[in-house]
Amino acid sequence: MKIVVAPDSYKGSLTASEAGEAMRKGIQKASLHHEIAVIPMADGGEGSVRCLVDATGGQIFTTTVEDSIGKNIEATFGVLGDGATCVIELAAACGLYVIEKSERNPLVTSTYGFGQLMLAGLQRGYRRFVLCLGGSGTNDGGAGMLQALGVKLLNVNGQSIKRGAIGLADLHAIDTASMDPRIHACDIRIACDVTNPLVGAIGASRVFAPQKGANEAAVELLEVLMNNWAEHLEEISPIQVRYAAGAGAGGGTGAGILALLQGRIKAGSSFIAEISELERHIQGADLVLTGEGKVDSQTAHGKTPSGVALIAQKYGIPTVVIAGTVGTDIENLYTQGVCSVLSLLNRPVSLEEALVDAATMLESTAEAAVRLYSAAKSG
Amino acid sequence: MKIVVAPDSYKGSLTASEAGEAMRKGIQKASLHHEIAVIPMADGGEGSVRCLVDATGGQIFTTTVEDSIGKNIEATFGVLGDGATCVIELAAACGLYVIEKSERNPLVTSTYGFGQLMLAGLQRGYRRFVLCLGGSGTNDGGAGMLQALGVKLLNVNGQSIKRGAIGLADLHAIDTASMDPRIHACDIRIACDVTNPLVGAIGASRVFAPQKGANEAAVELLEVLMNNWAEHLEEISPIQVRYAAGAGAGGGTGAGILALLQGRIKAGSSFIAEISELERHIQGADLVLTGEGKVDSQTAHGKTPSGVALIAQKYGIPTVVIAGTVGTDIENLYTQGVCSVLSLLNRPVSLEEALVDAATMLESTAEAAVRLYSAAKSG
Repeated sequence: MKIVVAPDSYKGSLTASEAGEAMRKGIQKASLHHEIAVIPMADGGEGSVRCLVDATGGQIFTTTVEDSIGKNIEATFGVLGDGATCVIELAAACGLYVIEKSERNPLVTSTYGFGQLMLAGLQRGYRRFVLCLGGSGTNDGGAGMLQALGVKLLNVNGQSIKRGAIGLADLHAIDTASMDPRIHACDIRIACDVTNPLVGAIGASRVFAPQKGANEAAVELLEVLMNNWAEHLEEISPIQVRYAAGAGAGGGTGAGILALLQGRIKAGSSFIAEISELERHIQGADLVLTGEGKVDSQTAHGKTPSGVALIAQKYGIPTVVIAGTVGTDIENLYTQGVCSVLSLLNRPVSLEEALVDAATMLESTAEAAVRLYSAAKSG
Repeated sequence: MKIVVAPDSYKGSLTASEAGEAMRKGIQKASLHHEIAVIPMADGGEGSVRCLVDATGGQIFTTTVEDSIGKNIEATFGVLGDGATCVIELAAACGLYVIEKSERNPLVTSTYGFGQLMLAGLQRGYRRFVLCLGGSGTNDGGAGMLQALGVKLLNVNGQSIKRGAIGLADLHAIDTASMDPRIHACDIRIACDVTNPLVGAIGASRVFAPQKGANEAAVELLEVLMNNWAEHLEEISPIQVRYAAGAGAGGGTGAGILALLQGRIKAGSSFIAEISELERHIQGADLVLTGEGKVDSQTAHGKTPSGVALIAQKYGIPTVVIAGTVGTDIENLYTQGVCSVLSLLNRPVSLEEALVDAATMLESTAEAAVRLYSAAKSG
């Protein structure tokens, strides 16, 4: 049998590559006769750059930029195997987990360092960008990113406003004249795993700011600031960023990219599947294994297992999903080509223990799944 | 597809019947088109009587007997659907969990009440017995059982010794003359899930007495007492009970039955499979599901999943095992017809939580297993 293994990362325990290797070992334990292709996936969240660079035989660069609270850090970005496409993760410079818990405050964190990473890409001569917006600790609507690229955000006195969402309270005018002109020659695509708009009940602030450290009052203030920011952007851009799908990705960084950088949004998982040529690998396979840390009713809406299964479904190949936690209400996955959803757990354990033992347990569960599938095939 | 569901009980959470119903629900969620036969299993341990009575359309009786420490309790036994075979569990009267933890002491607990249950069966006219020896809190070598049946265990002064293993320290002679004569007309079979002998390193005392409340000194004393008991039994019986396989079952109750009641030993799971006509149901099935609370390296040695899989293997039908906890070193099961071993857990949970949610999780896992199997079949 030919089996394609295309997992996302298992947050807190395994990278997508590690998960893929665990699955490979399990399949080999079931039988040494299976042909196995491991294609680590990602959905635009953390790990996407590493996954894309690995999948295409690209290269990783390191450069010094500011983190979301202005400290200098070493951050990485990459170029794909085509030597032309620069891939950058928002989380590399501005990730929630880059800063201490006590410093997490989406009213003050800025995407400035992300803009610096883009500048570093421009500097190396790249004009094609894939921007991965998952995992940020920011909610500034991409204002910091634009500032780094030379856009002037001015107050009523014509002075630059402070960085971070809170600075947008003083925003009076946006001056794009001084924006780095190389941007105009760029092809910019956004890979993200969410479709939330910038504002409203399912907008960036209300849905994602709480997990970035905002209390209730801060969330409502951020909502006002993002509305204000959108009003200014829409004055100079034809895009209605307020309610555009994906504008809320990366704490509204999607809005900044859509409005002023002519970026185009694509679901992270299908994007990465495309770049890694997942579809080519899946053609002619007998079975596909995928998975991530948690599978629930949200998984069918653009997460990796859903994206992978939809591709396999085109060729009539069943997909098995293996997750750490399997929630209820996963029936919608069955309409997307998923034939079965298994948990990797093999005994009662705490979350901490599960995270430590994830590789071994994933290996055993992949073995069990392939054994069961093979038994049915040969029966 | 025709699917046979034949689980054991999941200790602490589900009876075999409950487990079977959970699996049935899961299979029906996968598809309403499957033909399902639920055959609850047991391996001679607790739940065996209920399982056998249910499987054959028999009847349950209740009677008053002594528990292992001499208190009157209501205990049950059964007759199979044939109306002729009386099934009795040692654990019904003398189970470890029948008495309080503070009272568990295999030096003093006695199988007297088990003998009383046999008397009750004789009284109702039954002459065919199936004795299930799992789950006892005793280690008296079946001495109490024989006392209840009229056998005199005498000290050097010709007086009856005390009940419980400790009484055997004073044993001078066994007088079988007054044993209930109806016993001689009986056909007695023993269903047990262990093959341990009465004495030695893998004998009843050293292997099972610790979990019945014996400390190290008590274990060694029990070992001496069982050797002494065996010496007396072997003087009047042709059976070498000391090292006979299964003589150690039920804290040595196997020895008493083998020596003086002409009982024959049979592995509990295959026995119960036979009585429930499991083999007839399995013929013509496409898939068999079984399972119990824990599957590990011991499972292949006579536990239910092994017994069920071996029958299915005869007909080339794959067996899927679903357990609460899946240990390592389970490869030997694959040689017995098991095609895959899955855990029912679907998230990180404590044992307590797992026990409470077992039915729901078992249902989901049965669904996932059958979905995967069906996908392979139809692919």
